[in-house]
Amino acid sequence: MSDPLIDKLLENSIGWLADSGPDEDIAISSRIRLARNLNGCNFPINCDDEQLETVETIVDSAMRGGLEPDWMNFKVDRLDDSDKMILFERRLASKELFSRKRGAGLWTSPDERLSLMVNEEDHLRIQSVLPGFQLEKVYETIDRFDDELSAGLDYAFDSTLGYLTCCPSNLGTGMRASVMLHLPGLVLSNQIGGVLQGVRKLNFAVRGIFGEGSDNRGNLFQVSNQSTLGESEPEIIERLSNIIGKLIDYEKRARQRLLAKQSQMVFDRVGRAYGTLRYCYMLSSEEALNSLSLIRFGVDMGMFSSMDIHMVNELFVRINPAHLQRAYGAVEDAQARDVLRARMMRERLRG
Amino acid sequence: MSDPLIDKLLENSIGWLADSGPDEDIAISSRIRLARNLNGCNFPINCDDEQLETVETIVDSAMRGGLEPDWMNFKVDRLDDSDKMILFERRLASKELFSRKRGAGLWTSPDERLSLMVNEEDHLRIQSVLPGFQLEKVYETIDRFDDELSAGLDYAFDSTLGYLTCCPSNLGTGMRASVMLHLPGLVLSNQIGGVLQGVRKLNFAVRGIFGEGSDNRGNLFQVSNQSTLGESEPEIIERLSNIIGKLIDYEKRARQRLLAKQSQMVFDRVGRAYGTLRYCYMLSSEEALNSLSLIRFGVDMGMFSSMDIHMVNELFVRINPAHLQRAYGAVEDAQARDVLRARMMRERLRG
Repeated sequence: MSDPLIDKLLENSIGWLADSGPDEDIAISSRIRLARNLNGCNFPINCDDEQLETVETIVDSAMRGGLEPDWMNFKVDRLDDSDKMILFERRLASKELFSRKRGAGLWTSPDERLSLMVNEEDHLRIQSVLPGFQLEKVYETIDRFDDELSAGLDYAFDSTLGYLTCCPSNLGTGMRASVMLHLPGLVLSNQIGGVLQGVRKLNFAVRGIFGEGSDNRGNLFQVSNQSTLGESEPEIIERLSNIIGKLIDYEKRARQRLLAKQSQMVFDRVGRAYGTLRYCYMLSSEEALNSLSLIRFGVDMGMFSSMDIHMVNELFVRINPAHLQRAYGAVEDAQARDVLRARMMRERLRG
Repeated sequence: MSDPLIDKLLENSIGWLADSGPDEDIAISSRIRLARNLNGCNFPINCDDEQLETVETIVDSAMRGGLEPDWMNFKVDRLDDSDKMILFERRLASKELFSRKRGAGLWTSPDERLSLMVNEEDHLRIQSVLPGFQLEKVYETIDRFDDELSAGLDYAFDSTLGYLTCCPSNLGTGMRASVMLHLPGLVLSNQIGGVLQGVRKLNFAVRGIFGEGSDNRGNLFQVSNQSTLGESEPEIIERLSNIIGKLIDYEKRARQRLLAKQSQMVFDRVGRAYGTLRYCYMLSSEEALNSLSLIRFGVDMGMFSSMDIHMVNELFVRINPAHLQRAYGAVEDAQARDVLRARMMRERLRG
């Protein structure tokens, strides 16, 4: 049975996609997550169900102490498959969290800008996301929240190593900061390969919208720090912000050049994407992402007077299987879902 | 310099595409051409310029004798390249006709339903075309015209062999009858290969819209008789009409089956074609033909309330290079033409 809170979540717009932020023509969102663990408890991977539930009780009680009353709390064992997929598609929870039978949960603010997974890889995975490019603001938000939480919790912390984490790759700050960039200009002008190679050489990771293996669907790229050790949080954020600033600049110049030298090609690609989404009757999620990406590009170039990029941003999430089926009813297979996806797209673009 | 008559021709709609005819949902047009030669003159291939001009004078004088005053007469040596392409794209004249330096010409009725090439492969190539599937009516029309013409001309005719023609493949009746069929149902349901194989086994020829080598662009197929000898004209037409009737029936059933069993696929293909034509900025003639074909299919299935198939029929001709450049001005290369073609399509579909 579905958790009724999921329906409440679905009624809200997704704050970090629907609202405005700095450089939003290129930067979709800025995200930071902190890995934290409790002193004297095994990492979740070495816990039995009882120990997991003990951790959960401790964290939940700290959360209830200082929270706004409208935060939502989900327990993994009370979610059905569709609920889990909704949370995954909204990037609130991971598949690893759902692999736990007991003691795993999720807290989120109603605008989904701040959230907390309990007993994922670490006891706590705190996440903050804001629209656009504003990593410092995200860090301020998550740091304040982390401070409040830590008042009621005994974090596992070593004065030399920093925060102790299940995986050594998170040791130290326990922080992963990332910015989701929309780079159609660099892709269409065939510069993306070289640019990303440079980013990786500087020891930043680049992944697709749904993490490892999701390629460059929708011309969306998440750029994040690789190392968590040997630098302070502000240093990591400054280094990442510098490279993001450069990428935004490259993308801006690529768009200007395309418009100056290959405007017909750009209009053609954007127009065809719009024509497809507006009149198709079967649509895979990959084609939907790629077409939405081009429309987002077109909106930025002023090709569409009546559309705004926040609607397109939200569609990046709403075209996914669980969201589609919540909106239109369950279907049997991927092909039937492609029919629903096309219907939603036609309705949205005509509206 | 362009012949001013070409502009007059362009003002008219193309009768055999713009008007209604029997079975027009599947049969675009019915066409018959007769090859005739004058007694005592070499075939054009063996004529010098003077002889060609003598033939032309004889034919022109016979034409002027009995014609409606609004027929147009074009002299090949007074046409520029664009004029020639216009006549070719409207299927009034062939490239072979244009290869003659002197003595070659074309007569056409203003609705283009009846026309005559002078000194193409034969001294006279008479053509009649009507919309839809009505070969008997076309034959009546061309036969009456041929009778009128022959009153003033001495045709090369042998009581055993029939009409003498330059190429032995036209000997006898000198007649080639064809029907242009639109067969998207058989193509989309992958039945076209087998069906056309059967047609060819019965000794009929199948070609694309612009003759040999134009494949099945736009899902358009011309089916015509191969042999001109050993049967009377009505016998050839009856045999061809029988097979065309069967093909129309197969296509109807294929469309019904597609709509019953794969309607989403059909809507999707048609919708995408419409979306492309309505919003693209670069369009090759091949893609234009194929997309128009799907829209024609959609119109027949009632998917478009405000479009009619005659507009689509005419676009099959108007998307071609010379017609495009007459409408929008000369351009430098095929890529610039693709931009014009897309513009015309957007304007037509929005109108």
